[in-house]
Amino acid sequence: MSDQDRVHASLSLKPALDAIGTAIDQRFDRLLPLPDDGRRRLFEAMRHAVIGGGKRMRPLLVVAACDLFHVDRERALRVAIAIEAVHCYSLIHDDLPCMDDDDLRRGKPTVHKAFDEATAVLAGDSLHALAFEVLADEATHEDPFVRSELVLELARASGPSGMAGGQMMDLAAESQVFDLAATTRLQQLKTGALISFCLDAGAIMGRVGDAQRTKLRGYAHDLGLAFQIADDLLDVEGSSAKTGKAVQKDAAAGKATFVSLLGVERARTQAEMLIDQAIGHLHSFGAEADLLRAIARFAIERDR
Amino acid sequence: MSDQDRVHASLSLKPALDAIGTAIDQRFDRLLPLPDDGRRRLFEAMRHAVIGGGKRMRPLLVVAACDLFHVDRERALRVAIAIEAVHCYSLIHDDLPCMDDDDLRRGKPTVHKAFDEATAVLAGDSLHALAFEVLADEATHEDPFVRSELVLELARASGPSGMAGGQMMDLAAESQVFDLAATTRLQQLKTGALISFCLDAGAIMGRVGDAQRTKLRGYAHDLGLAFQIADDLLDVEGSSAKTGKAVQKDAAAGKATFVSLLGVERARTQAEMLIDQAIGHLHSFGAEADLLRAIARFAIERDR
Repeated sequence: MSDQDRVHASLSLKPALDAIGTAIDQRFDRLLPLPDDGRRRLFEAMRHAVIGGGKRMRPLLVVAACDLFHVDRERALRVAIAIEAVHCYSLIHDDLPCMDDDDLRRGKPTVHKAFDEATAVLAGDSLHALAFEVLADEATHEDPFVRSELVLELARASGPSGMAGGQMMDLAAESQVFDLAATTRLQQLKTGALISFCLDAGAIMGRVGDAQRTKLRGYAHDLGLAFQIADDLLDVEGSSAKTGKAVQKDAAAGKATFVSLLGVERARTQAEMLIDQAIGHLHSFGAEADLLRAIARFAIERDR
Repeated sequence: MSDQDRVHASLSLKPALDAIGTAIDQRFDRLLPLPDDGRRRLFEAMRHAVIGGGKRMRPLLVVAACDLFHVDRERALRVAIAIEAVHCYSLIHDDLPCMDDDDLRRGKPTVHKAFDEATAVLAGDSLHALAFEVLADEATHEDPFVRSELVLELARASGPSGMAGGQMMDLAAESQVFDLAATTRLQQLKTGALISFCLDAGAIMGRVGDAQRTKLRGYAHDLGLAFQIADDLLDVEGSSAKTGKAVQKDAAAGKATFVSLLGVERARTQAEMLIDQAIGHLHSFGAEADLLRAIARFAIERDR
């Protein structure tokens, strides 16, 4: 990709990222009014975690995948809210002192810092339940079969054979020597499973067949790995001011990353190759896949 | 209730409790085979939490509610597994040092003691996701509408307007003065919502109308409060050896409980009145509600 292409990629995505950011904030604001009882602090913590921050990469992926199959924007945003709630719950728990022990997230204090640990545990658990409530809500007039299929896939993507399983492997990575294959497998579970769900959601709501789903899975697989390599590069080269979270923590913890295993240059080349490959999976689509193509280019060009 | 009735209640329930205990253990054993990778410790922790312990009160309630409407036992047990997974996840997180800081649960070390805190957080999160996976699984041939309705109700019962909200109120109870009304409201969320779901699940699967559901809600409401009063009485009068968990913690933390608010004698009378009332809601049912009646009597006669 040329430098000009890169500038173009981030420019073309800016309005989409801004729009999804606003839409997600609005919906969480409506979903989480502050109650006037002993649960107020819990809702404040949930709002702290989900409103006003983050790249909203996963919601954008859901919307972009839904665009492919002309799925109504409101239906797409509802699923986007669910996936972002799961993503945010995992960040809250991941930041806890007994896990990664982070003080900073999205440029703000982490939930256990701004509130306390017990509230952070419960805010994460509450967002986790909220995600499934949003997906299963009959008031949305979504077809029951689609609703339960979305629930099933999100539960699988976030549970012990998906995200939570990957986080467990990540804990072990501090005390074991991980090679490239093990690191790839870890990241496919830890971040890849949820990213795959974003694309799968579009296919489920669009009610498309296996051939289309396979293309989207290929895209998600390559994008997820490239995204993680970019994250590892930011951890080495970025600053807390830009990323809004602590950097250079992996090296300090002695954890294997794509960068420690491949070196900066090969990691960057690998990420670019994966992005080309991700975009290649979309070749049978026309302009309706342009947003997915732009997201892929953005994934390795972002600075946070 | 006479002493003879009490002996009869616990005797008649014993075979049902034993049978449900075995059935739940078997199903969790099949659901959670140990993987041969970095997630092994996570699955060990999940198995530690869900296999071989607990009264299995909530699974038994689901089965008993399903019996009312002739719902197949296998369908009932699947929902029972989901509700028990949520109950166990909440116990794991509730026992964490930043929450209630308990070392003993169901006569065994708590998950963070037997493993570590990070594993406990992830084991809880994993069981939470597993519950929704089990409910939404299409392989069960459950009707999609029933599946998504069960997911919706369980998410509501366990989320910020249910169990997690009640746990948040419970945290506040250590620093605030709670009266009887506030304590009742807290317990309705913290333990009542999930107990109500057990009964609702039977109504959802039995596809019965509002009139039947209202009776079951009345039963669940009264049973839930009586169950909690009995718990508070055990906390004051029981021993760790019998309950399998720490006792007299509420008084030490200065928390209001039904016993501290009403005194031992009035609390016991209140629990008995609630149980009579709970059974009263079942008067239009015949022998098919005998298990629910026996559970209600057992709720205040148990010693753990």
